[in-house]
Amino acid sequence: MMVVMKEGATAEQVDAVIERVEAVGAQAHLSQGELVTVIGVIGDREHVSNIGLEGAPGVDQLVPILKPYKLASSQLKEGARTVIDIDGRRIGGSHFMTIAGPCTVESREVMLDTARLVRDAGAGLLRGGAYKPRTSPYSFQGLGDAGLRLLADAKEETGLPIVTELMDVRDLEAVLDVADVIQLGARNMQNYTLLTEIGRSGRPVLLKRGLSATLEELLMSAEYVLKEGNPNVMLCERGIRTFETAYRFTLDLMAVPVLKELSHLPVVVDPSHAAGKRDLVLPMSLAAAAAGADGIIVETHPEPEAAICDGAQAVRGQEFADYMRQLEQAAALAGKELSPVA
Amino acid sequence: MMVVMKEGATAEQVDAVIERVEAVGAQAHLSQGELVTVIGVIGDREHVSNIGLEGAPGVDQLVPILKPYKLASSQLKEGARTVIDIDGRRIGGSHFMTIAGPCTVESREVMLDTARLVRDAGAGLLRGGAYKPRTSPYSFQGLGDAGLRLLADAKEETGLPIVTELMDVRDLEAVLDVADVIQLGARNMQNYTLLTEIGRSGRPVLLKRGLSATLEELLMSAEYVLKEGNPNVMLCERGIRTFETAYRFTLDLMAVPVLKELSHLPVVVDPSHAAGKRDLVLPMSLAAAAAGADGIIVETHPEPEAAICDGAQAVRGQEFADYMRQLEQAAALAGKELSPVA
Amino acid sequence: MMVVMKEGATAEQVDAVIERVEAVGAQAHLSQGELVTVIGVIGDREHVSNIGLEGAPGVDQLVPILKPYKLASSQLKEGARTVIDIDGRRIGGSHFMTIAGPCTVESREVMLDTARLVRDAGAGLLRGGAYKPRTSPYSFQGLGDAGLRLLADAKEETGLPIVTELMDVRDLEAVLDVADVIQLGARNMQNYTLLTEIGRSGRPVLLKRGLSATLEELLMSAEYVLKEGNPNVMLCERGIRTFETAYRFTLDLMAVPVLKELSHLPVVVDPSHAAGKRDLVLPMSLAAAAAGADGIIVETHPEPEAAICDGAQAVRGQEFADYMRQLEQAAALAGKELSPVA
Amino acid sequence: MMVVMKEGATAEQVDAVIERVEAVGAQAHLSQGELVTVIGVIGDREHVSNIGLEGAPGVDQLVPILKPYKLASSQLKEGARTVIDIDGRRIGGSHFMTIAGPCTVESREVMLDTARLVRDAGAGLLRGGAYKPRTSPYSFQGLGDAGLRLLADAKEETGLPIVTELMDVRDLEAVLDVADVIQLGARNMQNYTLLTEIGRSGRPVLLKRGLSATLEELLMSAEYVLKEGNPNVMLCERGIRTFETAYRFTLDLMAVPVLKELSHLPVVVDPSHAAGKRDLVLPMSLAAAAAGADGIIVETHPEPEAAICDGAQAVRGQEFADYMRQLEQAAALAGKELSPVA
Repeated sequence: MMVVMKEGATAEQVDAVIERVEAVGAQAHLSQGELVTVIGVIGDREHVSNIGLEGAPGVDQLVPILKPYKLASSQLKEGARTVIDIDGRRIGGSHFMTIAGPCTVESREVMLDTARLVRDAGAGLLRGGAYKPRTSPYSFQGLGDAGLRLLADAKEETGLPIVTELMDVRDLEAVLDVADVIQLGARNMQNYTLLTEIGRSGRPVLLKRGLSATLEELLMSAEYVLKEGNPNVMLCERGIRTFETAYRFTLDLMAVPVLKELSHLPVVVDPSHAAGKRDLVLPMSLAAAAAGADGIIVETHPEPEAAICDGAQAVRGQEFADYMRQLEQAAALAGKELSPVA
Repeated sequence: MMVVMKEGATAEQVDAVIERVEAVGAQAHLSQGELVTVIGVIGDREHVSNIGLEGAPGVDQLVPILKPYKLASSQLKEGARTVIDIDGRRIGGSHFMTIAGPCTVESREVMLDTARLVRDAGAGLLRGGAYKPRTSPYSFQGLGDAGLRLLADAKEETGLPIVTELMDVRDLEAVLDVADVIQLGARNMQNYTLLTEIGRSGRPVLLKRGLSATLEELLMSAEYVLKEGNPNVMLCERGIRTFETAYRFTLDLMAVPVLKELSHLPVVVDPSHAAGKRDLVLPMSLAAAAAGADGIIVETHPEPEAAICDGAQAVRGQEFADYMRQLEQAAALAGKELSPVA
Repeated sequence: MMVVMKEGATAEQVDAVIERVEAVGAQAHLSQGELVTVIGVIGDREHVSNIGLEGAPGVDQLVPILKPYKLASSQLKEGARTVIDIDGRRIGGSHFMTIAGPCTVESREVMLDTARLVRDAGAGLLRGGAYKPRTSPYSFQGLGDAGLRLLADAKEETGLPIVTELMDVRDLEAVLDVADVIQLGARNMQNYTLLTEIGRSGRPVLLKRGLSATLEELLMSAEYVLKEGNPNVMLCERGIRTFETAYRFTLDLMAVPVLKELSHLPVVVDPSHAAGKRDLVLPMSLAAAAAGADGIIVETHPEPEAAICDGAQAVRGQEFADYMRQLEQAAALAGKELSPVA
Repeated sequence: MMVVMKEGATAEQVDAVIERVEAVGAQAHLSQGELVTVIGVIGDREHVSNIGLEGAPGVDQLVPILKPYKLASSQLKEGARTVIDIDGRRIGGSHFMTIAGPCTVESREVMLDTARLVRDAGAGLLRGGAYKPRTSPYSFQGLGDAGLRLLADAKEETGLPIVTELMDVRDLEAVLDVADVIQLGARNMQNYTLLTEIGRSGRPVLLKRGLSATLEELLMSAEYVLKEGNPNVMLCERGIRTFETAYRFTLDLMAVPVLKELSHLPVVVDPSHAAGKRDLVLPMSLAAAAAGADGIIVETHPEPEAAICDGAQAVRGQEFADYMRQLEQAAALAGKELSPVA
């Protein structure tokens, strides 16, 4: 870290900073320019991050030099990419993964129909929400445990590994019984309880970026999981909040190449929620793949008009195989192959 | 709700919308203009909110007419304001409340010193974090249970009711043992597990607005608590995320009069986190009070330079009584009196 | 437009709204629900947009039904796409156009070298700034008239039509002498003087979206040009301002399919400025083309390290032909062919 | 400026940076830590700002040390505040100024009525737009020259100095004939043509912050005016664009104390446009004054319901004197007195 002093900072103020730096066990390197004094701080990441000099007398700004994450960072693997294996299906490196299914688990029949069409089109993992985070307490909150059982049935029928969301730490065991990948939703990106417990479980996790989370914060949340010894973290861009009102969220595809530069972890894009409209899902999926995403998580439904939740953004079941074919071509542009299904 | 059709929507598309409306048990009122057709939807809030017509063929936009919250809305009380009584200290209506204390509970000595200076200056409630949500897993995470015990000691010593944060539902009982007001942090504004359990507990809650939550979403989260039968909800503006990099967050003081127009619940402002710098805390506190806030939650510390956490934004203990005096004048501008301390 | 009244609005307030509607020559259609009254307003776009009922007593919200733009809207052409012909090179519909060149016109030699490499790689138009909008008055402001003359030389040498920016209405004639396409920068998207004068000139214009302009505002600015009788408007997404600090701007690729749904005008993407880094330009260009953009405007330079301005984001001259080849494949995914060069 | 190299940057990359630094005539100071190398760059602001090392091989980030503005910065005056005198009325330091009037000049009668009520309530300057920047080409664009003449009449009648907006550089002379203060609107904050010409004119200017302009960019725009020798710049916060849809813009009152820390220039707040609703104007005005603003620019109208433009946000004429009285009390909280009117 570097501490940049204000123009006109006094010698006493500079000394106070050096004293504080040394008090936390770090070293201070003084560099005095004609107008400005800069103090380099060298020491443990932990000590330095707690130094608390923001706003101290005479201090203009603190400039972090080291990234605040370590296990999530590209440097850790010196450029190698993490490849995660989920029951024989791979994501990361040259492996492109498609995760598909309904927004919500609705009924046995719809769940099994969807699972079959997802498998037949060649997608790798099956998604479906049993517990649903809803802005309104008056909206449908998901089938809960019954939904988890339907997901287990769909897996048994099709062999597709399951991706489903965990919202309440008290449901952890029940979700671990069914989920091959735990989804952590955008609203829970900084739910440190869930991050830590998922880290301890070792189960692969799809970690969605919060609506206004910076990429650095997303990587810090990944760090919570990695720190507990779970290396199987997938990062997921799903749209951020901006001033634009023409769509629900603004899908930030620049996050894809930048996350891949900052981190070795696979990057997945969810084009459904930002768009909120079926017509936008295909172009944004192709764009994500062309930008180098390692995977897509997308909603599909045999009959979207009858869906309980978010039908408007689901790819129609009958068009899903064609969607997959085009997605494969876009992934190829970025040098990736669809993860082969056993 | 109104469904606005696209120019050029076909009669079949209009009929399909009407059919869907009636299928969920609502009534459709058709209104055909020269260029545009609009379909009014009348029915239960719950049914209508699940209607799922976004993006349906021929549909241009859905326009909600009723607010999606009911218990939190001003209409409920026909203009009367909710006044919450916390151990004899009141907030809301003409009662202005100051909540003050350190960011984190650090040690017995600092906690008691702070509690005394907060009480002596005339503030109404004592704040302090035992469990701390931290972006980095390498940062200090709070003293936990030991912190709660120090808060209980401070209460015993000074008589000040306690405001402290709950992060993990498994800590609910421990927090209820100590807290007179449970704080729900910005990152947990949409943690529906916590909202529901706090609702069931009946304990007053200070609900902080998420970094990119709209006012409507904040009120929907309040609705989760209210729906469980707990009427004691305080809304708290603490800064939102914008493009500006000169400060950590942008304190949105327009939220104060607007929340008070939309809802009967008291509105509190936290000027410390957005500013991140002590020099900004006083002007922003005065501004919040002048804008009509019902209370302020602010960090103070006997010796900010030695604070473990966020010392840069804490009002100096020796200046706190003067801060309170000025705040009282600003609250008076908006027709409020400091909540008298027993 | 629909005027939604507040719950509890009085009959007098409803009557006052109807009176105002009729006073501007429009018709009011009353629709009274159990809880809420809605008043439909039918009349001229101009009259209705000036009705001024926002915040009137008892009024909750005004909901526009008709889009506020007409000439820019898809409805105008009933789904047909505008194709613009620039000296035999086409953009729009199935024609994909690449516009390339240096950020700034620097010197005769660099300009001609760049022009040749742009032509040899098969790009359609040559870009280069003679007048540069710079945040700082201390930064290089462009070569001005001398820069325009170098652009004219480059056109004579290579046959490439020229795209260059106009900033000051007093330079209009000089720019019209050289530019085949006038670029209107993001900072000038709502410079109504320039929009109107460019509209009158009839010259094709590349209209960049402002840093925080909504798509509707971009289309309203296009409307200023179209209204003067100039149909040759290209819309350009170049990155918006968000809270994210990992890049200069957030490239909003969702704008591509949405603008194409809202309008018949061609949509161009500028990936260079948002990224600010060369490594991001290729993935974001491929993503833009895969999302259905009609063209790309990109910076390239024979020797970026020596560039006066923004060299860090310029594609290296020696890699430009390869960049073009990959871009062609991505455009093909969206059903487009590179505009053939005569 | 400091150049922070990536972890793992090679010696050649470090050398290349040093070479580039020296090539622009600046000095490089090398500082090698265990993990990271930092290169300090010392030299002219102009040279250093054009160094173009963003994204160069091995470079992680460039950290500016000196503020990019000089004439606008607090350091220039060593803490003294600029006080601007407009025909004997002062703004800045301990002088609080109110600028009031209609949004648009509509008619002789309304203009004179408004001018009288503004004067009688004790406001210092009269505002009114003759040229109006409008998002839609179909909206009323202002009375133009005829509007300027009505402003001149209002000044003659009441003695109030005039604040009016300039949009087109070709209108400069006409506006200078009437305006005591030239207003530069948010959309033109980075219109460098206007900034430069206003700078040369020497006339006081009210410079509005762009909708998504950072404070640093606002100060850079001020620097364009100051650099031409015109010291009479007032900065104006008028609301920024955020994700919140409950109001038109989010008034950023934190900008007030921060701009006053960064710069010696007076800071004015415009509460009318962000709110868009009369009920919010008073609380936000009081908040702005309590936060330390040097002035308020506010819309008032004798009969807002009949106003051509933005009547919904205008303070009612009959309530304006009361508004002024409350504003005076809020300004007093921050140690300011209303600028006495001769």
